[in-house]
Amino acid sequence: MKNKAITSRDVDFAKWYTDVVKAARLADYTSVKGCIAIEPNGYAIWEKMQEILDKKFKELGHVNCQMPLLIPEKLLRKEQELVEGFAPEVAWVTEGGSKKLDDKLCIRPTSETLFCDYYATHVKSHRDLPMLYNQWCNVLRWEHETRPFLRSREFLWQEGHTIHATEEEAEKETDQMMGVYHWFHNEILAIPSIRGKKTEKEKFAGAEYTLTNEALMYNGVALQAGTSHYFGQKFARAYGVTFTNKDNKEEYVYQTSWGTTTRMIGALIMVHSDDYGLVLPPRIAPRQVVIVPIGDSDKVMHLADEYKNKLLDNNIIAYVDDSKKSPGFKFAEAEVNGIPVRIEIGERDLENDVVTFARRDTREKITQSVTIDIVKYTRDLLETIQKDMYERAKTRRDNLTFEAHNMNDMEKILNRQPGFIHAMWCGDEECEEKIKEIKGCKSRCILEDEEAIDDVCVCCGKSAKHHGVWGIQY
Amino acid sequence: MKNKAITSRDVDFAKWYTDVVKAARLADYTSVKGCIAIEPNGYAIWEKMQEILDKKFKELGHVNCQMPLLIPEKLLRKEQELVEGFAPEVAWVTEGGSKKLDDKLCIRPTSETLFCDYYATHVKSHRDLPMLYNQWCNVLRWEHETRPFLRSREFLWQEGHTIHATEEEAEKETDQMMGVYHWFHNEILAIPSIRGKKTEKEKFAGAEYTLTNEALMYNGVALQAGTSHYFGQKFARAYGVTFTNKDNKEEYVYQTSWGTTTRMIGALIMVHSDDYGLVLPPRIAPRQVVIVPIGDSDKVMHLADEYKNKLLDNNIIAYVDDSKKSPGFKFAEAEVNGIPVRIEIGERDLENDVVTFARRDTREKITQSVTIDIVKYTRDLLETIQKDMYERAKTRRDNLTFEAHNMNDMEKILNRQPGFIHAMWCGDEECEEKIKEIKGCKSRCILEDEEAIDDVCVCCGKSAKHHGVWGIQY
Repeated sequence: MKNKAITSRDVDFAKWYTDVVKAARLADYTSVKGCIAIEPNGYAIWEKMQEILDKKFKELGHVNCQMPLLIPEKLLRKEQELVEGFAPEVAWVTEGGSKKLDDKLCIRPTSETLFCDYYATHVKSHRDLPMLYNQWCNVLRWEHETRPFLRSREFLWQEGHTIHATEEEAEKETDQMMGVYHWFHNEILAIPSIRGKKTEKEKFAGAEYTLTNEALMYNGVALQAGTSHYFGQKFARAYGVTFTNKDNKEEYVYQTSWGTTTRMIGALIMVHSDDYGLVLPPRIAPRQVVIVPIGDSDKVMHLADEYKNKLLDNNIIAYVDDSKKSPGFKFAEAEVNGIPVRIEIGERDLENDVVTFARRDTREKITQSVTIDIVKYTRDLLETIQKDMYERAKTRRDNLTFEAHNMNDMEKILNRQPGFIHAMWCGDEECEEKIKEIKGCKSRCILEDEEAIDDVCVCCGKSAKHHGVWGIQY
Repeated sequence: MKNKAITSRDVDFAKWYTDVVKAARLADYTSVKGCIAIEPNGYAIWEKMQEILDKKFKELGHVNCQMPLLIPEKLLRKEQELVEGFAPEVAWVTEGGSKKLDDKLCIRPTSETLFCDYYATHVKSHRDLPMLYNQWCNVLRWEHETRPFLRSREFLWQEGHTIHATEEEAEKETDQMMGVYHWFHNEILAIPSIRGKKTEKEKFAGAEYTLTNEALMYNGVALQAGTSHYFGQKFARAYGVTFTNKDNKEEYVYQTSWGTTTRMIGALIMVHSDDYGLVLPPRIAPRQVVIVPIGDSDKVMHLADEYKNKLLDNNIIAYVDDSKKSPGFKFAEAEVNGIPVRIEIGERDLENDVVTFARRDTREKITQSVTIDIVKYTRDLLETIQKDMYERAKTRRDNLTFEAHNMNDMEKILNRQPGFIHAMWCGDEECEEKIKEIKGCKSRCILEDEEAIDDVCVCCGKSAKHHGVWGIQY
């Protein structure tokens, strides 16, 4: 039964999205303009994301820390490109403790300046390097639109900031962390993603270059999902971060930063969910299995508990919904909340020695013998769902991936249906600008593993330098 | 060998404290006035605190969420006592996106207002209650002094905010969460604490009453370590948080809030640490055992790895320090960082089939046979250290606990040595004020389990109502 609170995805995608967010109680608007409240169901997904990414970061030698929320204006102004990039969208604290401040402070939009300031006083020798710091925190950018998880003034993220003794090491780090994001999206979130490099125009303010992970939503709109920046010595020069190298000479450090945000929750929704509510890939689902007893006879409740305990003992996150609601209500609730597997245990079914498994992704029901190896069967089913979700997302993505050889192609595609558009490009910003004139289509990335390109620019027709991927973005 | 970077605790306690914070690389001052950087060693302790408390909160049915960082002035002003309590110490955002804002926003000093605003639109029926929300976040109060972990403008904390259908349930929650803090300090942080109630003067702005957990530092100065507030329907009235009760009548919810902060890291230092650096109770130590190979022969390295793996397999957090530093340097580093147990494996010792265990708390060295059951022995040793640290802290606390029967007693004690002073009190604020005139001595709490008191007020000599605990505070 379709959820009445949710507009059909194919009728109004934007409305469908906010309906799902609301119906699944992931987040809500607040009285604070531009800021959302992340509700427990949404925050649990973020906690799961943090758990998996944090473990990976630490395995790779990173440590967590916490830098201040506020940045003095003077400190921010030291790196020109960064200021120009962020100044228009920061919030300023001008009063504190009932007094007007002499020097105003901005709420961090990102923390390169603070990490540089810290590193400048704490790194001395090549023996102190690399320093591989990360922080999980909130940041603020003065956005003018608000869409839960996709765009809000305050959002949560992690920002890794590392410094290294050599260019090579720092570039390797930049690439490695992009690899982590790519792995996370493909393997954990079941979101097939493209790994590439941002153009000069689209790169992070102050970076030498930016690597990016790009995903395509169900409606063909692209979403940047994780970026990793290489700064070379740019920030180090601006903030005076030097070290004594192996030859006993003073040198500037080589730096990187990389981040992912609560936007990933938005991506999860827009890639996988449907008209019945949230659909979560099992590997990121805070609760993987709900067991719904139908009736409350001892036999039913006993089997429900037995299943739950066996699953929990094997690291499958299961719970019994023994609330006083009707089975139909519980089914709908599990569905809207995106619990990957539902096990229904009914008295009558037990007389026939069967129980029912329901897949959230396909909404398929499967009857199984009550004596089934519950752990193995459930684990296999969860893995099948994970794989199937990835494959379906990939098929959809591939169906919305196009090739354009000239501006006419570009226009036709964008007028029909947005998606990823592969098109060769000469590398000139002028052509990039012209492409943007078509419905705001931007370069998502240029592919990193470019073979020698024997083609012409989609825009000017001159010899192409890059294999670009283009699209409309969130 | 005494750490040269650390002033002796008995010579200058305040200097000793900041020296330990710096030497153990727990935190440092920044260019942002009033704000500190929590460095990886310090943040790892916070992560461990979060892990243990968060697990406990969830076992008790709480869920995490995230409310906005900013509070519009209008929203804050709805509850008069709260505004009066916090307005002088908030920071105001008055510019955003390059424009002056019509309505200024404060950075949250605490989030009662935001939770009330959320609950007001999300709770409808008694079936929605209780709502047991918590958030881990940063808050900001415009302090004028800065001491790492003890006092800074921004700090990290958790704030639980719950709403209930009855007074009884809400009061039970207030008491339960104080129980969690008390358990956490005594059992995990090895800090013996007093559980009591704040006086009317010292309670949280807007609360009906505040429960508190009070700890005593090595120097006899008291530290508030966890508070739990009962609001009754006060905030609910101000923010219009109503629900339909079982009798189908509209009623205001009953509310609580409770919080602990990164201050607990300061308490850990000031209760347990010494002139050699940090000393951590094993249950909160991010790393519990360091194995130091002396020399790098296969035999030594093999045993080091074997020990490490066995310990890790049994949930004891061990690591091998195989860096290229000298053994003496490694010992000192483990010591300043407060690793509870150090295992030294030397080639010569191995010829005699022995290894050495060093306790961080007592700095005692113990020689053991190489064939010892490493897991059992280490686990027992860690538990012994935990218990011994608690007992030592308790003895110290008890030695610094005094009784006063009149103002003369009070003055004598406070002139000699600060500590916890037990003194009966009539309950009048006038007497409380007079006591404060002696070196700023404040009521820490009044004991909750008061028998009928057959005594007179320490100040006015009239009949006493409360058993008070008094002290100088951080």
